[in-house]
This record gives sequence, C-alpha cells and structure tokens, in this order.
Amino acid sequence: MKQSQLFTKTSKQIPSGETSRNAQLLIQAGFVQKELAGAYVYFPLGLRVLNKVNTVIREEMNAAGGQELFMTALQDKGIWEASGRWSDDVVDNWFKTSLKSGAELGLAFTHEEPLAKHLKQFVSSYKDLPFSVYQIQVKYRNELRAKAGLLRGREFYMKDLYSFSKDKEEHEVFYEKMKDVYMRVFDRLGLGDKTYITISNGGSFSKYSYEFQTICEAGEDVIYVLDEKERLAINKDDVNAETLKDFGVEVDIESLQSFKSIEVGDIYSLGTKFSEPADLMYTGEDGKKHPVYMGSYGMSPTRLLGTIVEAMADDKGMVWPKDVAPFTVHLLSLSSKDEAVQGRIDSVSTEIYDELTSAGVEVLWDDRDISPGAKFGDSDLIGIPLRLVVSSKTLEQDSVEWKERHLDAMDMLNVDAVIEKVKSFASEGAVA
Amino acid sequence: MKQSQLFTKTSKQIPSGETSRNAQLLIQAGFVQKELAGAYVYFPLGLRVLNKVNTVIREEMNAAGGQELFMTALQDKGIWEASGRWSDDVVDNWFKTSLKSGAELGLAFTHEEPLAKHLKQFVSSYKDLPFSVYQIQVKYRNELRAKAGLLRGREFYMKDLYSFSKDKEEHEVFYEKMKDVYMRVFDRLGLGDKTYITISNGGSFSKYSYEFQTICEAGEDVIYVLDEKERLAINKDDVNAETLKDFGVEVDIESLQSFKSIEVGDIYSLGTKFSEPADLMYTGEDGKKHPVYMGSYGMSPTRLLGTIVEAMADDKGMVWPKDVAPFTVHLLSLSSKDEAVQGRIDSVSTEIYDELTSAGVEVLWDDRDISPGAKFGDSDLIGIPLRLVVSSKTLEQDSVEWKERHLDAMDMLNVDAVIEKVKSFASEGAVA
Repeated sequence: MKQSQLFTKTSKQIPSGETSRNAQLLIQAGFVQKELAGAYVYFPLGLRVLNKVNTVIREEMNAAGGQELFMTALQDKGIWEASGRWSDDVVDNWFKTSLKSGAELGLAFTHEEPLAKHLKQFVSSYKDLPFSVYQIQVKYRNELRAKAGLLRGREFYMKDLYSFSKDKEEHEVFYEKMKDVYMRVFDRLGLGDKTYITISNGGSFSKYSYEFQTICEAGEDVIYVLDEKERLAINKDDVNAETLKDFGVEVDIESLQSFKSIEVGDIYSLGTKFSEPADLMYTGEDGKKHPVYMGSYGMSPTRLLGTIVEAMADDKGMVWPKDVAPFTVHLLSLSSKDEAVQGRIDSVSTEIYDELTSAGVEVLWDDRDISPGAKFGDSDLIGIPLRLVVSSKTLEQDSVEWKERHLDAMDMLNVDAVIEKVKSFASEGAVA
Repeated sequence: MKQSQLFTKTSKQIPSGETSRNAQLLIQAGFVQKELAGAYVYFPLGLRVLNKVNTVIREEMNAAGGQELFMTALQDKGIWEASGRWSDDVVDNWFKTSLKSGAELGLAFTHEEPLAKHLKQFVSSYKDLPFSVYQIQVKYRNELRAKAGLLRGREFYMKDLYSFSKDKEEHEVFYEKMKDVYMRVFDRLGLGDKTYITISNGGSFSKYSYEFQTICEAGEDVIYVLDEKERLAINKDDVNAETLKDFGVEVDIESLQSFKSIEVGDIYSLGTKFSEPADLMYTGEDGKKHPVYMGSYGMSPTRLLGTIVEAMADDKGMVWPKDVAPFTVHLLSLSSKDEAVQGRIDSVSTEIYDELTSAGVEVLWDDRDISPGAKFGDSDLIGIPLRLVVSSKTLEQDSVEWKERHLDAMDMLNVDAVIEKVKSFASEGAVA
C-alpha cells in the first residue's frame, strides 16, 4: 500500500490521558484511537496486526481440533441465574441493558452458560464426546478502572475455547495438550522466550489452574520462575509450601526470583459446574446419564497485541515480529531536487514495490513528499520488520539500504539482488 | 472435514417459535441457533457461510478503495447529543447501558458520529480528501419485534462504509460508483438477477437515496420495477409523479408491476450533517475552511445470508451459491454390509477426499454410519452445491454419482475422471 493513500497519520504528541506505553505508541503511530477508557477503535494498521494475531491463534486452535463458532454478546438472564452468575454481587463487571419490553439483558463477559445450553441438542451419547469449540469475539467487562491501554479492556477481543469430555481423565489429556498449543501461539507471536506456564489457584472450579504470564515491566502480576527449561512459574499470590509440594517442586521460596508479568492466557478445568445447571448430559457406555466434563481456555488477541508492543518496543517506537507486523517491508523513497535523480528513485522504487507486491510480499511504500527525517522517524515508530531506503545516495552505489527494525546494522544491497533477498526474508519464519 | 467430527447435527423438527423460513432451515441444518429473538449463534457451518459473505464484501470494498477499520460498540453519549441522535425520542432503537461510575453509554446502531470525531485528527487539507473507510462489525438495534430470523436482527453484522469528499460534486462521483460496487456484490452472492437499485426517499439528509431490493416473498417491502435493463426500481412508499419526473422516468404508475422484496443495502448522501457538529473541516485550495461532505453505505452480511436462504431454498432445503457455500463438495459414502465392498467404498472415498482437500477444494465428507436416506436428506437440507455419492451401486460401474444441488440431473462419472472434473467445477465462477 502507498502511504500517501493511507488516511491515518503519525503524531509526535503523546496522547493526553494515556499513561500506558502500548496505547501511547499505538495512538501516535495511527494504529488505534481511544473511544472511551478500555475501548479502542482499530485503524487500518492496527486492524492488520489484530487480524494477524487472530490468524495465528485460529490456525493453532484449528490444528488442536477446535471447531470455530460465534456467540452473541446479548444474553438473556435465565441461564445465568441458573448458574448463579447473574447477580452483580457475584459478577461485578456485567454491562446490563434491556429490551423495549423491559426484559433485562447482559453483555457477555464469557460464554460457558449459553454454550452449555446450546450444545444440549447435539450431545446425547458418549459417542458425541470429546470435542472442543472456540470463538474469536468481542467481550464486554465493566471494569471500574481501565488505564492500561489494550492490556485491560471494557470492550476487547477474546479467543475462548471450551472443551467437552466424558470425564476427568479424558479432560486431562486435552488440558495438558492445550499447554503446548498455547506456548506455540506465544512462540509465533514472538513472546515465547518471555512467557511461562504459571501455576495459579483454580478459582471456584478446581484447586489449581494455569495462567500464561509474559515477563514485562508493564505487567500487573508478579511471578516466580520455578523451572526455566520447563517454562514453569508460579503466581506470587499463590506461592506456598503446599502448592509447591503438590507440583513436586523442591525449591526454597526465599531464593526464587520475581518478575513483573502480563497474564496473556489462562486455562481452567470447569468440571461439571456449568453442564449440570444446563442439563448437558450424555448417556455413557454404562447406559447411565452423566454430566459432561468441561474446560475453558482464554486468551485475548487485543491484550496480546498490547503485550507485544510493551515487550518489544524500544525508545524509537514499536518493533513487530514478522508474523503479526502490519506490513513486512517499509519502502522509503527519499526525494531529490534533481529531476533526473528523482526519476531514477521513482523507477527503482516502483520496480521494487510492484515486484514484491505481485510476489505476495506486503509492502508499505512511503511515497510521500516529506523530509527524510520524518520518514525515518515514522518508520521507527510504526515498527515494520524490514526497512528499505531508495535515495540519491544509495543509487550512486546502484544500491538500496537494508535495515531490520530490531537490529542496528545496515547493509547496502545491489538493486538487482534486493528483491530476491526480500522474498526469502518474507518467507522465513518469524523473528522472535 | 469429516461429518462424523462436526459437533452439530441436523434436526427434522421445525424449531418452535420460528416463523421465518430462513431461521427454520438454518436451525434445522445446524448452521445457527437462536440466543434470543433477533440474536443468533453461528455454528461452524453458518460461520463458514458468514465468513464467505464477508470475504466477498471485503474484496469489493477494498477494490473500490475502501480502507478497513473496526469501531467500538460502546459509545459515550456526548457526540451523539451533539448530532441530535442520543435521545430515545429521536432514535427509538438504542440499547443503553452504563459504566460503574454511572456514566451512560450506548451500543452503536451506526457509526457516523464517532467516525467523524476520530477522522478530525487526520483531515486538515483538501489534499487529504477524498477517501473512504469501512468496517464489518456487529451492530445493536433494540427492535420492538424481531421475528424474521436473520432478516431483522437486534444483534447482527453490518458492513458500513463511509465516504469523505471535498464537496457534493466529488461525492457524487463516488456515490454513483458505489451503485455498481453494490450490484457486483449481489451478483457474486447469487442475488444479482433478483436485485434492483431502488429509488427511495433520502431520510433527513437528502431528497433521495438508493436502496437495493431483492425480490423475495419473505420481504417486508414492496417495489415497482421501472427499468429491467437498468435494474431500476422504486419503493412503493415513495412512488409518485414528482419522483418519477425527477428521475426522468416516463411510465404510467397504474401499469407498474409490484413485487415483495428484502432491502439488502442502502446508500445515503449525508452532506455535512455529521461533519459540522463534529467540526470535521478541511482547508480548501481557496485557503478557507469547509466541512467535509460525507456519504454512508450500508449492507448487512447476516441479512444477506438470510436472504440467500429465502431466495434460493427449495422444498428440500437450502441451496447455496458456490461463492458462499460452507463447502463446495458434499461427499456421501453409503455403507455396505459386504466387507469387501465396504473396503472399496472406503478407499475410493478416502482417495477422493484426500486429493480434493489437498488441492484446496472444500469437502464435507459424510463418513457417518447412518442410512442412505438420512444422508441424502441431510445433504439436501444443508445445500452444498455439488453432491458426490460413493456406494456399492456406483462402484459396480466403477463410478461416482454427481449431482448439483440446484439441478435435477444426475450423472455417473468414472472414478478416475471425477477428481479432475470437481477441481474445475470448484474453480469456475459462482452459480447464480
């Protein structure tokens, strides 16, 4: 895409009222804008990143056998009363509204209840189990405060997967598998090195659950790393001798090192907590009725997007991993006052742009008539993995300047060689 | 996908409380389920169709130069008060809710106001215009009644595009172009033959606007066709001598034929109605400030999905056009009690399934151990464009049965020939 056509612009001004680095950078670069605290508009560059995060997640959920569906935000209160989660005293972050008839509705903050209700029609025998379903959908949570940019939203994207098994044993197999599936997602998003499978309390459903925590100064959580090789950690809130013993970890609590971290996912064993009130039962091989054993597996694409910004940005701007970058290549054509030189800059840039885009490489071409300094500044702020510069200076050497956003080194490459090299750069795996 | 893995099942029972044919068929086939009147859950088959409808729309909006973004549903009341659309006396279908602080919020039924507000930061000069943006996003409308299945939703998908031009003249060029863009979308969705560009009153913003109306018995509107070749019609509510004269149409109103129809899109000239209260101004070549001239262009993917069902279904079930079908091929393997024959059925089916899926053809393989009658019934109900049957009878002739859903004719094709023929069937354009 030609940058002159993009309707957004960058801004040098730090947006007022934004204290989080992720929102500041994303707004300054024109990726998002705040509608209200905890609810952001995604402009084209931001939406491109969000869609790529969603694609990575979708591919891994599909590979794990998840079947995608899409639930509604609007919810009747009946099923939530049955599970005990309608009252504001129990769930303190409902957004509620009502129909013209006066009937109360809620905006879903999660979907265990409606899902258990709807699956009843499809589950009757043990032969119908196990399976898992997921959605990537907007969730609403009426948070008292929402000051962390994309890290804590009132309206935000969630990937929520739910598993349905015959019993605890069958459930555990899937639950264990999902730990690996989650870590593969974080690897592909460039967060693998910083992310730990973190022991946490299980809420009201089971004794323990796992969170996935990414080490980052902007995090609201604190974890202790227990086993670097196994990528195992424990939430500070839950560390005690009994828990460590339950997990067979022999360490001196005093010796553990703590890190601030962002919770980027969580997986819960739900047991029959939601299947029983919804009457989600199956007939077993024994001919008897049993409640379905459920699990839920959450991860927020928008929080992940904010986490990537927080974890990777440097003092010049954002640094996107290749798999989720809005574009793979940022092509900067610097203007020349010499008409003949400008003609050469134009023709070389056009050739690079046309050949790469027709080869399926995503290129943002800064074809605007602004100063080189402004182009370099924008490029660092936007954070596209590979920057190519075409200027009078590079063309004197019949070359194009090559610089990867996360490295300091620059290279001069022959015009003829650069296109092939970019193609192989684009097809290589993600840079962590 | 193997049908034995799909967690949804078809149902012979007409769902209670659903009077519309589209919701009845979609629920019976396991594509959707009702959460509450006007709000439907999309199961895998339904979501696949919805995603394909969205893809067709997205491709055409991108080709027209639209830049995709994604707005929030949650809305502060301030900007809506400024435009005069906050009061329930003016807009009677708001869903409203509130923050913990007590501040009132609305769930967006459209997005002119927030968009005009956010674009202010990017528009300063005439050089920034024209451009257009769009989103495919969930809208909320608190309809008093919602009984038409997917045709009238309280929570539904909308594609809304907004254009920003310097003046009326520049706007008109884009507005005219969008008529063709819309008709191309309806063509690709298989509705082109039945859809008319329909003169309507312009609401509060301009004298006239255009609706797009698809002739269908389930429709709530009535249109008169004015010019078959130009695909021009007029809404019955707006037909009068003056309007016909304004459009240069010379016909006898009494002689016009009326049809029931579904409104599948509308395009409005908004003028400066929303840019002025939002202070969305630009400096012209004359050095003076001018308000931006806006247009809005709506179309609901979920209503389109319902319309396709209504317009194409026959007495056996749904009939999907190829571009939006959940799968292109429905492969039915009929069971045999003869073990050797069953082995042959399995191996031929597996070969067809594997070769087609690896060639990128989307195949739903009914590998379930149920009666042939049940398989044929499900296949007609689900409505996949091409049905292939492998059975003892077809294999006696070393053949596979070929039947397209919208045709009565059946064919027997040699096992070796069928795969290549399916590949070319899949790559051909949509069947209207």
